[in-house]
Amino acid sequence: MNSAPLGIFDSGVGGLTVVRAVQELLPSEDILYLGDTARLPYGSKSPETIRHFADEDVRFLISKGVKAIVVACNTATAHALPQLREQYRIPILGVIEAGVEAALADERSERIGIIATRGTIRSHAYQHALALRRTGLMIHPQAAPLLVPLIEENWIDHPATRAVLKTYLDPLVEKGIDTLMLACTHYPLLIPVLREMLPDDVRLVDSATTCAEHLKRELTALELLKDANFEGGLQLYLTDLSEEFEALARQFLKRSPGRIQRAILGA
Amino acid sequence: MNSAPLGIFDSGVGGLTVVRAVQELLPSEDILYLGDTARLPYGSKSPETIRHFADEDVRFLISKGVKAIVVACNTATAHALPQLREQYRIPILGVIEAGVEAALADERSERIGIIATRGTIRSHAYQHALALRRTGLMIHPQAAPLLVPLIEENWIDHPATRAVLKTYLDPLVEKGIDTLMLACTHYPLLIPVLREMLPDDVRLVDSATTCAEHLKRELTALELLKDANFEGGLQLYLTDLSEEFEALARQFLKRSPGRIQRAILGA
Repeated sequence: MNSAPLGIFDSGVGGLTVVRAVQELLPSEDILYLGDTARLPYGSKSPETIRHFADEDVRFLISKGVKAIVVACNTATAHALPQLREQYRIPILGVIEAGVEAALADERSERIGIIATRGTIRSHAYQHALALRRTGLMIHPQAAPLLVPLIEENWIDHPATRAVLKTYLDPLVEKGIDTLMLACTHYPLLIPVLREMLPDDVRLVDSATTCAEHLKRELTALELLKDANFEGGLQLYLTDLSEEFEALARQFLKRSPGRIQRAILGA
Repeated sequence: MNSAPLGIFDSGVGGLTVVRAVQELLPSEDILYLGDTARLPYGSKSPETIRHFADEDVRFLISKGVKAIVVACNTATAHALPQLREQYRIPILGVIEAGVEAALADERSERIGIIATRGTIRSHAYQHALALRRTGLMIHPQAAPLLVPLIEENWIDHPATRAVLKTYLDPLVEKGIDTLMLACTHYPLLIPVLREMLPDDVRLVDSATTCAEHLKRELTALELLKDANFEGGLQLYLTDLSEEFEALARQFLKRSPGRIQRAILGA
């Protein structure tokens, strides 16, 4: 048992979909969230730059006394997780492994589409993790760089979002995918429109839910869970504060984010 | 006469539209360009953060020995120019003043639309500058945050871009604007599609061309022009290097950017 908070970080507020999933599954855990809104997005930047940013994010969370860290950003997981695990002793979990296990939980999964940022697709992290676990899979990666900006505008139902999704999804549907991995923590907000646009038999696997389940198993195994009699709280840190980020945080959390504090990294 | 290079900076590669315009007008000037690609975009972030970033950008250019600086980013001009001018002795020009003068060069301009990032619109920098110079104007600002991501994908002709533009432009057309200010250095790439979507009598005023003309007048007045017998060169620095940024740089410059160097700021 360990009553220190969990640390969760993302390039921005998209990782709050992971926070919500963790709060549902582990309601007694305290969570300290860091969103690097001053330098977002991560998805279009180079592996070297992302590793530098992720390292500063982890250092900040460790300085706040967290007991474990979740990299709630697919791009940061793809580029930086192996290095972070080597460098720090604290347990650090990413979003990719859990997502891949969930995608393959259905024995019939054969043709798997992946939508993600360009950085995540380029890293081949999902493609490798899938291929390692099951041979003979058909894997269809699709970089989808415009989805994050559209979601951040809350244009979920706008004709432009459908036009963009059509361009990204048509080639996957033509390939006959049976599973679509939403490999970016922003994408769970698109689930209703994806359901509408995709054939009924395509299964959606999202990072947020699968990551929370993975975290619960890990914390249980490491005996790091907090006493379940207390209700957990959330502390939110962002590297840049603005009205838009507060509004977005509310949208991703589906409730008020409380008081947001400004984090200064690399100090 | 002064043969030191000009410094030009932007959050990313959009400011290369200004470089192109300056090269056309002042072909003998050497230009040192800095794009803060590691931390882009600036348009959605807070004034405080933008002032901090712009200060680091200016320090970098000064350390390279430039004779004058152009802030080739509307958001940075809007939030940081007054402070930068106070803090540094070197001549520093923004993109707003020149654009406003160009918009008002036509005596008949009365109803002026402005499209820009959310940060630029929020700053009221254009609205104030216009209102100071001519009374009785009808000013219609429109934040257009999705245009930069679409332009960076080179989806100029995509149905999604038209759907996004329709949402941004319809309210301006309904107000009967006679002038549209393209108040972001990315937007000149949209001119062909804007011409198609707007009534014929709407005049377009873009930041890049007007800024280059303003720069020429200022350098002439300050006797800072270089000997016109030499051909100028371009040195390109980015804070994050990637294949996408190189491809984008080519698109904005309309020719090869040459060797791009990585800049480390705040060192």
